[in-house]
Amino acid sequence: MSEPIAIIAGRGALPGLVADTLRARGTGCTVVAIAGFAPEGVAADATLQIERLVPFLQDLVARGIHRVLFAGALQRPRLDPSLFDPATAAEVPRLLPLLQAGDDALLRGVIGLFEDSGIRVLGLADVAPELIPGAGVLGRHQPDTGARADAERAAAIVGALGALDIGQGAVVAGGLCLALESLPGTDAMLEFVVRSGGVQKLAGRAPRGVLYKAPKPDQDRRVDLPAIGPDTVSAAARAGLAGIVFAAGGAVVLERARTVEAADAAGLFLWSRGR
Amino acid sequence: MSEPIAIIAGRGALPGLVADTLRARGTGCTVVAIAGFAPEGVAADATLQIERLVPFLQDLVARGIHRVLFAGALQRPRLDPSLFDPATAAEVPRLLPLLQAGDDALLRGVIGLFEDSGIRVLGLADVAPELIPGAGVLGRHQPDTGARADAERAAAIVGALGALDIGQGAVVAGGLCLALESLPGTDAMLEFVVRSGGVQKLAGRAPRGVLYKAPKPDQDRRVDLPAIGPDTVSAAARAGLAGIVFAAGGAVVLERARTVEAADAAGLFLWSRGR
Repeated sequence: MSEPIAIIAGRGALPGLVADTLRARGTGCTVVAIAGFAPEGVAADATLQIERLVPFLQDLVARGIHRVLFAGALQRPRLDPSLFDPATAAEVPRLLPLLQAGDDALLRGVIGLFEDSGIRVLGLADVAPELIPGAGVLGRHQPDTGARADAERAAAIVGALGALDIGQGAVVAGGLCLALESLPGTDAMLEFVVRSGGVQKLAGRAPRGVLYKAPKPDQDRRVDLPAIGPDTVSAAARAGLAGIVFAAGGAVVLERARTVEAADAAGLFLWSRGR
Repeated sequence: MSEPIAIIAGRGALPGLVADTLRARGTGCTVVAIAGFAPEGVAADATLQIERLVPFLQDLVARGIHRVLFAGALQRPRLDPSLFDPATAAEVPRLLPLLQAGDDALLRGVIGLFEDSGIRVLGLADVAPELIPGAGVLGRHQPDTGARADAERAAAIVGALGALDIGQGAVVAGGLCLALESLPGTDAMLEFVVRSGGVQKLAGRAPRGVLYKAPKPDQDRRVDLPAIGPDTVSAAARAGLAGIVFAAGGAVVLERARTVEAADAAGLFLWSRGR
C-alpha cells in the first residue's frame, strides 16, 4: 500500500470522485478543504487556511504525507492580513505580484511553495488517468463538418487567449465567436450566450455551434485542467449549441457515464479532439 | 460646395451626428438606412436592401454620388434569398465565405463591392476628425498607476483578440481579465461584468479596473471604429470600473461634452491612450 495523498479540494465533484477512486484502490487520502470554500459531496479531513500555508505544509510532512493533488477548480481566496503566521508572511512578497497576474502564474508560485517543503504535487493523470479521455467521440452524436470547422476556429482562439493566461474556453458558431471565457468561468460564459439570445439570435442560423475547452498552452497540467460534466452538457444545451469539444488528454470528464447519457439525450456531441 | 456623400447608417448616434456636421458645413448628404435597422435620431433618405446592393450602388453613381461613409456599428443582416437581384446574386459566392469569418473580413469584402462600382469609401477621419480624440485625458479624473497597468494589460489582450478578428474590448481590474468582447458587443460585455458581481466581487478589491476599447490591428479604419458615448460611461460606472481607456486616434467619442460631463460626474476617467 502506497503512502497517503492529500487532496486539496477545489470546486465541483472532482475532489470526491478522486477520493473515492483512491480509497477503492487502497491508497489512503486526506481531503483538505480551503478555508471559506466547502467541498461538494465529500467530507473534509482538514482545512487549509492559506494565510498559514507554510505551517500546514510542515504538518503534512510531519504526518508522513509527501504527495498532494489539486482537484477541482480553485478560487482566488481573499486573504486576511491578520491571519498570517510569520513563515507564510515571509513568502508574501514572492506571491504578491503573482496575485495580480493570471491563474497560471499564481498556481506555479503555489506549487513552488509545496515543492520547497518537500511535497510532490501530483497531476490527475498520475492517479486517475481514466478521467482524462484520449481522442474520440464519446457519445452517439457525431460532429458534422460545420462543427469541426467551428472547433478548429475555437481552438485557435482559446490557444491565443491561453497564451495570455486568460480563459480556457470559447463558444463559436458558424465561424463567429459568440463568447470568450474570462475570470467568471465556463458557466458564466454559457449563461452569457443564453442571455444574449443564444446561438439562433447571434449567429442567425439553425441550432449549431460548439463549446470548446482546452488547457492553456503553458499551464502546468497538474492543476486546473478544464472539466466537463453533466452540468456542462445542460448549460450547453440551454445555449442552443450542437456539442462540446475539448482537447484530448487535456480535459477531465466527470461522471463520464452520466455526462455521455445527458449529451446523448440532449442531442449534443461530446468530442475529445486530438491534434 | 463639394459633391454629396451617402452615409450608410449603422447603430447609435453617430450617423445623425455626422449628417448634422456635414450639413452644417454645406456638404450635402443622403442618409441611407439598412433595411430592417432603423437609424436613431435621424431621418433616412433611402433604404438599402442588402440583397439588392449592386443596383443600389449603380443608382448612387447615376445620381452623382461617388463617396460613402459608414457611420455607426453595423449589424449582420439576415439575408432573404428570394430578394436577390441577379447582379447582386452573382456576387454572393464571393461574399459567402466572408459571412462566416470575422467582421473585418466581411467588411473588407463589402468595401470591395462599393469600390468596384466606382464609389469611394471615406473614413470618419476624412470628414469629421474632431470626433476621434488624440492622446490625452479628457475629463477631470486621472488614471492612477494601477489603472495604467490595467490599460497596458488590456491593450495586449485586445490586440491579441483583434489579430483573430474578434472583439474590440476587454475589462481588466487589478491585472485580472474580467470580460472579453465578442459578437454581442461592449454593452453586453459590461452587463456581463455587472451580472457576474462587478469588479468588487470578481477582483476582490476596492472599485477599480478599466474598460479598454481599440480597433483591431488589421481592421480597415474607415469602418467600425469603436465608439464611446454617455451610455458607455453609465454602463462602465454600473460595472464598478475606475475609468474608460481607448486607443488614441482609433476610437470615436460621441457627444463629447455630454460624455466628459457624465464621466466627471460618475468619478470615472476618460483616457485616450497614445502608444
